Amino acid sequence: MFIAMNRFRINPALEEEFVETWRQRESYLDEVPGFQSFALLKGPCFNDYVLYASHTIWESKDAFEAWTESEAFRKAHAQRSAPQGTYLSGPQLELFEAVLT
Amino acid sequence: MFIAMNRFRINPALEEEFVETWRQRESYLDEVPGFQSFALLKGPCFNDYVLYASHTIWESKDAFEAWTESEAFRKAHAQRSAPQGTYLSGPQLELFEAVLT
Repeated sequence: MFIAMNRFRINPALEEEFVETWRQRESYLDEVPGFQSFALLKGPCFNDYVLYASHTIWESKDAFEAWTESEAFRKAHAQRSAPQGTYLSGPQLELFEAVLT
Repeated sequence: MFIAMNRFRINPALEEEFVETWRQRESYLDEVPGFQSFALLKGPCFNDYVLYASHTIWESKDAFEAWTESEAFRKAHAQRSAPQGTYLSGPQLELFEAVLT
């Protein structure tokens, strides 16, 4: 099992728009070999930002890497982004390999 | 869905012992209501540490919080830890609520 998390610091004033943009986004992930699950996660709130992370589970690192070079990836990332000022920092990509399950 | 991640910076020289300690650990999680899955994740390697994270998926935040006050939690955390010097920092607990799946 392989997990890819993309962490974002989101402007608290634009949080609803941020989630709505993700809700309306077509991920094209269901067609991708080795893809297992997706979630948009809300983490802790701070004074000046809210931590969010996209969280995808893959069969393997190879499956994840193949997706980043696929047409499904290109199409997913060509969509409308959230309003300017939404992302205070990030995305910060963190990749994890499961060593015990 | 609720995800609890505990991040640790691990001494690269003691990485094998760290994983072995987790392998031998009895988590007692299977008996816990609302528990869905566990993984020990290996993240990126840096010059002076390797990022690891324990990753548990729960039905809800309530299920996670009930576990932290349970006998199963107490028993799991009363076990032998990794050798001194293994943990360079952490655990840093991060909690995430799924807002889209």
